[in-house]
Order: sequence, then structure tokens, then C-alpha cells
Amino acid sequence: MHFTSERRLDDDVLEREFTLGEIPGILWTPRSASGSAPAPLILVGHPGGLHMMYPRLVARARHAAAEGFAAVAIELPGSGDRPRSAAAEQARADLRRALEAGEPVDGEIVDRLVLPLVEKAVPEWRAVLDALLSLPEIGGPVGYSGGVIAIGIRLAVVEPRISAALLFAGSFVPRSMFEEARQVTIPLQVLLQWDDEGNDRQQALDLFDAFGSKEKTLHANMGGHTGVPQFEVDDGNRFFTRHLK
Amino acid sequence: MHFTSERRLDDDVLEREFTLGEIPGILWTPRSASGSAPAPLILVGHPGGLHMMYPRLVARARHAAAEGFAAVAIELPGSGDRPRSAAAEQARADLRRALEAGEPVDGEIVDRLVLPLVEKAVPEWRAVLDALLSLPEIGGPVGYSGGVIAIGIRLAVVEPRISAALLFAGSFVPRSMFEEARQVTIPLQVLLQWDDEGNDRQQALDLFDAFGSKEKTLHANMGGHTGVPQFEVDDGNRFFTRHLK
Repeated sequence: MHFTSERRLDDDVLEREFTLGEIPGILWTPRSASGSAPAPLILVGHPGGLHMMYPRLVARARHAAAEGFAAVAIELPGSGDRPRSAAAEQARADLRRALEAGEPVDGEIVDRLVLPLVEKAVPEWRAVLDALLSLPEIGGPVGYSGGVIAIGIRLAVVEPRISAALLFAGSFVPRSMFEEARQVTIPLQVLLQWDDEGNDRQQALDLFDAFGSKEKTLHANMGGHTGVPQFEVDDGNRFFTRHLK
Repeated sequence: MHFTSERRLDDDVLEREFTLGEIPGILWTPRSASGSAPAPLILVGHPGGLHMMYPRLVARARHAAAEGFAAVAIELPGSGDRPRSAAAEQARADLRRALEAGEPVDGEIVDRLVLPLVEKAVPEWRAVLDALLSLPEIGGPVGYSGGVIAIGIRLAVVEPRISAALLFAGSFVPRSMFEEARQVTIPLQVLLQWDDEGNDRQQALDLFDAFGSKEKTLHANMGGHTGVPQFEVDDGNRFFTRHLK
């Protein structure tokens, strides 16, 4: 892991850009984090485009840091400045065409778009986790927070160092991942924007039902796709405080 | 309103039993409540049987009092020591028979059981509200918290002094009340026990969808009918703090 920049934000959060092999990322650590008081870590998931997403990511990281959590975001394979995959670009174009035509989205398109992304992104997250947990200021336990819910599901199943996940319903989920959802046993909080027209509400409810976790909570709110209420940010922190501290 | 008993609980909450006409009830006020700092009020709804429900009611009231809220519970018509209605007893017996036989519950039974209860209980709550808001230590605004969701719906529609409601999904709701739900505009938080076998989950989701409120939040949890997690009690307090203070 190679740190390429470092700066202190107003609230004394340390922001460091890094690369791990070909994966670029950003790590935020709270003032309190040190070798003697290592911080639990939150993996901040997002739909790709680290620079475009930066304002929202840094806001989430600073909220987490205020509660003593470190946070990290990485670029997804095929997004931002990373090399494009022709197959993924084709799947994305097919999805866009279906949505613009108002057609139901074929499961085959979702599979072509999401499954390879999960296959590539999950090992990358795990490599980043290896590197970060070797830093003295990062101690675990680890939580996953965010969208691309399929990545969160796979991580929750295969990565034992992840202790809790706050998942944003609303992205497309391959049907085969419902079976994986049944294998998830860590505490979950699932956010659903009830009036998000681009979201398949019934699929989100079916997915919540499928999760095998004994502790799982669904929070449904109004406000459209991007209108998650501010109080959910605080509540997400409380969820991680219950499970990571 | 006639106070019939008064005692201080350990945490300095004042507990007073009262009667208003034929309605018995219990009022809890926090230490801080006075004529110069009147407390907002939470109406604590429950399925009836004030004495049987007391342990749970006083726990909810004390949690509310810790945040500066007064709380009140009253006996439902036909419950506890109040006179029984033959029609309601018949409807209750018919419901029990259907449930024990594992039959789907006929909407006609639900109508016979719940609609007369709503018709009687809502004016009683409003009379209690008139009496309590004339006390110097109670100031409003007012929230409704609890089960018998049909009573909460009707109150939210007809009683402008109620500013927010925390509703427990899980009781039977007459179909005609879905139309009333569309007229509700106050902020709502709806609790649903996802794995409550005695609850019609799809009906609860349909009802949540029907509410006309711009701010409405659904919290679904595991734990069975009576297993609402402790963190939801705190979150309910935060909901009322956002809307009643």
C-alpha cells in the first residue's frame, strides 16, 4: 500500500489517498486513532467514480470519524480512471437502453453487469483490508456500509473480519445472490428508499427477507433515490457503534 | 379529571392514576415538568388491560420521561375493569376461533372488532387530551405511540393536536381504514416485527405505503411479536424529540 497524498481536514480527520497495486483509494482516520487506540474500520461502498462521489464519501467518512471510526473508499474495477472492461460497458449500455425504453430489466443483463463486478471487487476489498489492518492506527472490527449491495452480500459471506453491514437497497441484484443472502449471518441494517422509482421495491423486500441474519433491521424512508434522511446517517453510526465497539 | 393516587418512582417520575368520567388512566410526568417548563405529551397506546400491561407501559413511560416527555395510558373501552360489550366479546371470540383453526381472518370479523373500538376510543383519547393539556405541567405538542394502529390512524386524521405518531404494525386493520391512512399527513415511524407469525406482513407494508405523510419511516426487525429490540425504544425517543421539541 502506497500513500500518495496526505492532508488534515477541518475536523482533524486525516485524509490519505493511496494505491494498492492498481486500486486507488482514500483512507480517513479520526484524530483519536493511534497505535495505542486503533480505530474500528468502515468500508464505504459506492457505485464507482471515486472523484465524482468524493463529496458524499467524505461526508460519510467525517460522520464516521466523529464517532471514532476510520473509513476507506476504493475505486471499483472499470470505474473512474481504472481500465474499462468491454463486457461491462456493453452490459451498462444494455441496462441504460432498457431503462430509457421503460422496459423491465432482464435478469441476464443484471447478471452480466453485476456478477463480474462482484467477482473482481470482493478480492480487491479483501486485499485492501489486509493492508489496512496491518497499520497500527487501524484495529478492526470492520463494517461494510453502502451501495452495490451485491458486493456487500458477497463480502459478508466470505470475509469473516466483517462484523456488521449497513446495506443500501436499490441497486440491481442477480437472482443467484439471493441464495448467498441466506448465508449472511452478521447483523444487518438495510436502507430502502420507499419512493425510489428506479428501485424494485419488492425485490428489496424479498432480499431483506432472504438474509439469514438473526439481527436484521429494515429502514424504509421517503425522499427518492438520493433523499436518505439525515437522521439515518446518525442511526447508521449508532448501528456500527453497537456492533463494532 | 380526578387523580386517585400519586407516587414518585425511583427516577423521580411522578406517577398518578386518574379517572375521567368512566375512563381510568395513568399519567407519568418527568421531574422537569412544571408550569414554567411544561412537558410535551406522548399518548401510550396498548391493546387493553391497563393492569396487565402496566410493566410494559411504565417502562415506555420512564424511557420517555428520561427525555423530558410526559406520558399517559388509558384503559380501552371494554377492557380491564370497564364494562364489556357483548358485540365486541362476540367478535373477539370469532377472531380467536378463526386464528385457532388456522383460517384466514374474515375482514367482516375485523370490522366488527376494531371499528366500534375506534369509534369509542378516539373521542375518549380526545377528552383525556383536553383535560391533560389544561394542566400547567403538560404543554404539548402531542405524540401517539403504540399499538391498536387503527386508533392511531383515526387520531392522526381527526386530532390536529397530534404532531407525530410511532405506530406498531401488527394488529388487525379494517380495509376501510386504508382510505383514512391516505389522509394522514403527520410524520410517522412504523414498527413492524418481520417474523411475527400472527401478523399479516403484506398488509402492514400496504398500510405503510398508503400513509399520506411526506415523512414516514418503516422499521422492520426480527424477534417475533413481542421482541421489539431495545434500540427501537431509544430510536422512538429520538423520533419524538425531532418532532415534539
